[in-house]
Amino acid sequence: MKKIEIVQNILEANESIAAQNQRLLDKHKVFAINIMSSPGAGKTSLILQTMTRLKEKLRIGIIEGDVASTLDAEKVKGEAAAVVQITTRNMSENCTLIANMVSHALQSLPLEDIDLLLIENVGNLICPSEFVLGEHKRVVISSLPEGDDKPTKYPMIFADADAVVINKIDFLPYVDFDTAAFQKTLHGLNPKVKIFPVSCKTGEGIEDWCSWLFSEIEANS
Amino acid sequence: MKKIEIVQNILEANESIAAQNQRLLDKHKVFAINIMSSPGAGKTSLILQTMTRLKEKLRIGIIEGDVASTLDAEKVKGEAAAVVQITTRNMSENCTLIANMVSHALQSLPLEDIDLLLIENVGNLICPSEFVLGEHKRVVISSLPEGDDKPTKYPMIFADADAVVINKIDFLPYVDFDTAAFQKTLHGLNPKVKIFPVSCKTGEGIEDWCSWLFSEIEANS
Repeated sequence: MKKIEIVQNILEANESIAAQNQRLLDKHKVFAINIMSSPGAGKTSLILQTMTRLKEKLRIGIIEGDVASTLDAEKVKGEAAAVVQITTRNMSENCTLIANMVSHALQSLPLEDIDLLLIENVGNLICPSEFVLGEHKRVVISSLPEGDDKPTKYPMIFADADAVVINKIDFLPYVDFDTAAFQKTLHGLNPKVKIFPVSCKTGEGIEDWCSWLFSEIEANS
Repeated sequence: MKKIEIVQNILEANESIAAQNQRLLDKHKVFAINIMSSPGAGKTSLILQTMTRLKEKLRIGIIEGDVASTLDAEKVKGEAAAVVQITTRNMSENCTLIANMVSHALQSLPLEDIDLLLIENVGNLICPSEFVLGEHKRVVISSLPEGDDKPTKYPMIFADADAVVINKIDFLPYVDFDTAAFQKTLHGLNPKVKIFPVSCKTGEGIEDWCSWLFSEIEANS
């Protein structure tokens, strides 16, 4: 059972650092969300859409988590108040951001000048579910081409989400995706979750998502 | 550096068990492939297509790896000679199959009655790249809706693959996917990799994939 104990210790240490991160964010009145999904589900696209809609109202900072490459950081840096890249490739936990990585990233961000911090996690539906980062809300994106069975197959990440964004709804004519079945399974795992069907390509549904996000920020301040 | 050492020890132990698995497979003349991809890229669909094409020529066994649920095992059990399900949810490495899990699964399979073993890994582009299972070939599926940047963003899994299946090519009219750019990046990481564009929905390209697989099995026997 030694390996299980080590894992337990890592998770407990992570929670303690995440709590420190949240205290630091609260001190500077920064609202942080942790955005998680499979590779290619649309994390960067959702961040770009969110920045376009909210940049007049809020100063937005970004933490970009990636296994390798700075592709996403390049895409978002034009619109953001500040961007920090975390590359996990050579770290022992390389399949998710962990609180300690975010703690270092926070030291590089001008927290006084940020209202909303969007943390793009590594593309993965498994590891990020176990590691809190200090975020105020946890958001999972699931995209239509992945199929409607994802909440059944990866229940942990969906059970803990505050919001689920169903992206790529413009694919509905071309894929076999039962939205009602997806929502039913999701509500079974997580009765309070907010669900936002969107297309980051056409912009459909983005306004509802941004309204919710803005109201959560107001409620927290 | 203690954590790094522990990770190193886990990986070395895994390689040793994987080598035992491969010796057992070779003894019974079973050819095994490890099928890896993001969630929803088409691992189960590729297995179903492969069984349909090759079931007259080969006796096919399946190991289904999942975090939770037996959805995929249910889908494939009709056509296979034997199916074993591994559910990783409560295991300390829950984001990938590891050699030890496969070693247990092999004990439940009638290896004398199997020519080809298809191992469906957990949906993840990161963790499975570090854990060999005893397979003869490593196959990664990447699907068009995920985007053409996946080899740049998740290089380890693509660098080690023997074959990459580009699935959902029937989406080409609806997505912005540069096949030439994808192949160029992939060949940069892995010059010898075989690439198979397919649609598991329409069956396009499946014959080439199955011909390659069959020739590899013949070359190994």
